[in-house]
Amino acid sequence: MSKKEGLQLEKIRHSLSHLMSMAIIKIYPDAGLGVGPAIENGFYQDYGLPESISSELLPKLEKEIKKMILKNIKFEQHDMSFDKALKLYKKDPYKSEMIKDLKKAGEKKLSFYRSDWFENLCKGPHVASTKEIDPDAFKLTKVAGAYWKGDEKNKMLQRVYGVAFETKKELYQYLKQQAEAEKRDHRKIGKELDLFVFSDLIGKGLPLLTPKGSIIRQELEKFITEEETKRGYLRVYTPDLARLELYKKSGHWQHYKESMYPLINVDGEDYVLRPMACPHHFMLYNSRPRSYRELPLRYAEIARQYRKEQSGELSGLIRLMAFSLVDAHLVCRPDQIEKEFKDVLELIQYNMKILGIKDYWYRFSKWDPKNKKKYTNNPKAWQKTEKLMKEILDKLKLKYVEAEDEAAFYGPKTDVQVKNVNGKEDTLFTVQIDFDMPGKFDMSYIDEKGKKQTPMVIHRASIGCIERTMAFLIEQYAGAMPVWLSPVQAQIIPISEKFIKYGEKIKEMLLKEDVRVELNNDNETLGKKIREGEMQKIPYLLIVGEKEQKAGSVAVRDREKGDLGPMKTNKFIEKIKEEIEKKI
Amino acid sequence: MSKKEGLQLEKIRHSLSHLMSMAIIKIYPDAGLGVGPAIENGFYQDYGLPESISSELLPKLEKEIKKMILKNIKFEQHDMSFDKALKLYKKDPYKSEMIKDLKKAGEKKLSFYRSDWFENLCKGPHVASTKEIDPDAFKLTKVAGAYWKGDEKNKMLQRVYGVAFETKKELYQYLKQQAEAEKRDHRKIGKELDLFVFSDLIGKGLPLLTPKGSIIRQELEKFITEEETKRGYLRVYTPDLARLELYKKSGHWQHYKESMYPLINVDGEDYVLRPMACPHHFMLYNSRPRSYRELPLRYAEIARQYRKEQSGELSGLIRLMAFSLVDAHLVCRPDQIEKEFKDVLELIQYNMKILGIKDYWYRFSKWDPKNKKKYTNNPKAWQKTEKLMKEILDKLKLKYVEAEDEAAFYGPKTDVQVKNVNGKEDTLFTVQIDFDMPGKFDMSYIDEKGKKQTPMVIHRASIGCIERTMAFLIEQYAGAMPVWLSPVQAQIIPISEKFIKYGEKIKEMLLKEDVRVELNNDNETLGKKIREGEMQKIPYLLIVGEKEQKAGSVAVRDREKGDLGPMKTNKFIEKIKEEIEKKI
Repeated sequence: MSKKEGLQLEKIRHSLSHLMSMAIIKIYPDAGLGVGPAIENGFYQDYGLPESISSELLPKLEKEIKKMILKNIKFEQHDMSFDKALKLYKKDPYKSEMIKDLKKAGEKKLSFYRSDWFENLCKGPHVASTKEIDPDAFKLTKVAGAYWKGDEKNKMLQRVYGVAFETKKELYQYLKQQAEAEKRDHRKIGKELDLFVFSDLIGKGLPLLTPKGSIIRQELEKFITEEETKRGYLRVYTPDLARLELYKKSGHWQHYKESMYPLINVDGEDYVLRPMACPHHFMLYNSRPRSYRELPLRYAEIARQYRKEQSGELSGLIRLMAFSLVDAHLVCRPDQIEKEFKDVLELIQYNMKILGIKDYWYRFSKWDPKNKKKYTNNPKAWQKTEKLMKEILDKLKLKYVEAEDEAAFYGPKTDVQVKNVNGKEDTLFTVQIDFDMPGKFDMSYIDEKGKKQTPMVIHRASIGCIERTMAFLIEQYAGAMPVWLSPVQAQIIPISEKFIKYGEKIKEMLLKEDVRVELNNDNETLGKKIREGEMQKIPYLLIVGEKEQKAGSVAVRDREKGDLGPMKTNKFIEKIKEEIEKKI
Repeated sequence: MSKKEGLQLEKIRHSLSHLMSMAIIKIYPDAGLGVGPAIENGFYQDYGLPESISSELLPKLEKEIKKMILKNIKFEQHDMSFDKALKLYKKDPYKSEMIKDLKKAGEKKLSFYRSDWFENLCKGPHVASTKEIDPDAFKLTKVAGAYWKGDEKNKMLQRVYGVAFETKKELYQYLKQQAEAEKRDHRKIGKELDLFVFSDLIGKGLPLLTPKGSIIRQELEKFITEEETKRGYLRVYTPDLARLELYKKSGHWQHYKESMYPLINVDGEDYVLRPMACPHHFMLYNSRPRSYRELPLRYAEIARQYRKEQSGELSGLIRLMAFSLVDAHLVCRPDQIEKEFKDVLELIQYNMKILGIKDYWYRFSKWDPKNKKKYTNNPKAWQKTEKLMKEILDKLKLKYVEAEDEAAFYGPKTDVQVKNVNGKEDTLFTVQIDFDMPGKFDMSYIDEKGKKQTPMVIHRASIGCIERTMAFLIEQYAGAMPVWLSPVQAQIIPISEKFIKYGEKIKEMLLKEDVRVELNNDNETLGKKIREGEMQKIPYLLIVGEKEQKAGSVAVRDREKGDLGPMKTNKFIEKIKEEIEKKI
């Protein structure tokens, strides 16, 4: 459970867990009690039961808990010695083991809470009495199996989850947001709109973009490539694997090993799929001597990168085995760093506007001197670089939060943070100043005076990891992507077979103007076709019949505004082309 | 040496190798003789010598050989028993070992050639007398180290190479072509024009495209993506690695294992970098049921693929550890296969025209029933599919050569063959019919009658492997890429500092029209700038001075035609834009 949610909520959630156990014991007097913590938005409790239970039991438990709440049951805390507790609970295998574990862990005493006839091992805190709990502000949400101590060799317990807030209104808001999040879940929408699929034979965390999903990605790539080129970025192509030596020199192997793939040995040489593209771009920089006049050099690549994740953590387009970062590395002179940093932030702000992302904030992500393993050990450089970044941020008058232990191993970051549909914070884009690798790779340029100097490097992801950004946008728009990103931008629906030919003519006209258009001549009713088109979130349905044919028009149905009435075909083409060009 | 070159040439080359040994022995009486075969265009011979020799020795050897040729030395063959030969050559460690090896290999007797005072172990054939050798039709070309028996644990011998033909004219032509090939070598041009680089830290066979080289690739990708989209291809993105299971099911593991990378085990699951993209596209096809009305489905992807090569065979952009295939898989009904095949060939012909490739021919690549390991074992399907492909090719009235043992493991191919600058045959593009994988993957569609059917698949590469195609084009154009593919399309050269401002104005005008333009305001003479621009193969140099500024014009220097004289700036923009758009 997050610190922000406050003490009172924690008390309520612990207490509800306690009451739930009482309700369970009324049904299963011999129920064993596993762990039962308060968590974000609620609580859970594990039970060793003689049988599996289903979610059908939950309303019954809820009713029982509500009854107890109304009885104003008091919770009283008392401590107990280990010996006494072990004797008292010797028949309860879970509790006995927990008590032993707590002793091993060096706890001095045990805390119990008692209410009415039930006593439970719990550190708390609890409310003083159920008076403090709103009986309409909690809900039991699901039952799931959970191994005792999380070990699959152990017995499977029954875990019951609940959500709980201080007020009924908060619960209602939470449930509403949850329902909305579920509706917007990009994994669900991805299936409904046929945007991406997974294959068991290919593997977890390795999505395949369908032709429709690929259009979204292609449009994003085209947009950012053109925009970056306009802003003086140079596109490059670098290999997505390299000799291990490269990452030993860069420091990835020392600081980032756990996220890297196993080595691939070819003819006695160790290769590895690249965790990041930075050292590759540095090899391009180092391929010939550089003059101060050439800088800044802005190498950009939509770079395939590989990150080993726990297979249980792989999810949709967000946690992947391999992804494509809209990456760039700006090699610049110290006197250029401020302007380049500012320009990157401007580009990101522009992208955000184009992508319709309004709710975001900046996070200044710093190192943690205590975390020796994660960061390059150079305290002076850390202090200097963080000071530099802070000065730039302050000069730009950006509002930002500071976060410790969130830096890259080679330098501090400015992250662009968003809330996802689940209300959770996520990093979408990032800008970093690297004080570390230019020296490691002996990167240099010759300055005005003919002296060799070490450049500075900015690492940045302008629209982030393209798969994650797609997921974020799908959720933000609930699948109804802006016209320029829509796989199908318009669908023509003839009201009967007679008008298929006219429909085809309209289709040709639109295709000529590079509008992505379909003609729906399925053997279905008009109503069904319209519903289907709306389900598919197609921005415009163009219904054509006799009237439209005579007038050279289409009857336009807007995804959001509904029926717009008839429109001359040329007029409609103008309208949709403008929306595509302006990305609105 | 190739069979086509004929017996007489083989005799000449063996004989020259023999004469060269005589010339060497005159200098090093104790020279040991290693192998000395006739090879394509010439011959070589390995020598165990008391010292390393340099190419400075070659003219001296040539002179000696010529003298011998003019003496009309006779070559006489005779056989010898192993025992006698071993006794005779017991002091020569190389010859002794070769004799023993030949015995082990089951040879019945040994063949020697004698001429004058020298006898050599050689199967021949040789010319009867040096009268048959034109003393001006051979040349010794280089000296290189070579391990005895190719094993680096053995002693290093000195290998002397020569080229030899029947006539002086042929030698001259060959040397001329070699010089031209060297001049056009994409590895050399790649360096001169800064198109791609290699890095020891990244590894062999893993090129990095510089910003300039990346422009060529980007333009090729843009061209083919747009062209394919116009022709009804659907773009997809699929992962570049997958579970080993996938390739076991496809048959790659059984038939193609030696070219695949070592396995990558993540959390107990074996993954492998993909050798080909076909099974990935089939997983997309299989992600939902298909109706006959959906076919043909043409999945296209510029697909990164990995092929393990011997590190000694890696070369430039041609033999790589990983490459990007302009790939597609057309899933179609049997009644669609002919049209789809024809359309693919038409697309390829169109691409060839755009890329300026004029000298190509078709190869109908068939299986070899004897090569059990390489091909799917289904003789009936092979016969049927090869018959089908032959019928289509004949119907299209295409001229083609037939080649055995050149098919894919899953079906026959029609390859587009070209000659590279070295005069060697290469496959640039390919179209294949697959009778094998649709069944293995249980791919299906529902036909008009509601019955489940198995589709057919065409695999094709429309502009081949993009890196190789780049290499081929760089060599074809000797670096002077057509305007649309040129990294820098025009360079503005002000004749003095005074006209930099005017140059900048011209630059802005060109940039606005998306022309890739540079302004050269280096502190150099005009002559040097022009020479440098021509060396860089920039299509147009725009020289601007007082006259041009006054007239609102540029003095155009064409890469091929030289000075075109002054041209109104707008006129030049029109001209270059037309060339870019029409890809001429």
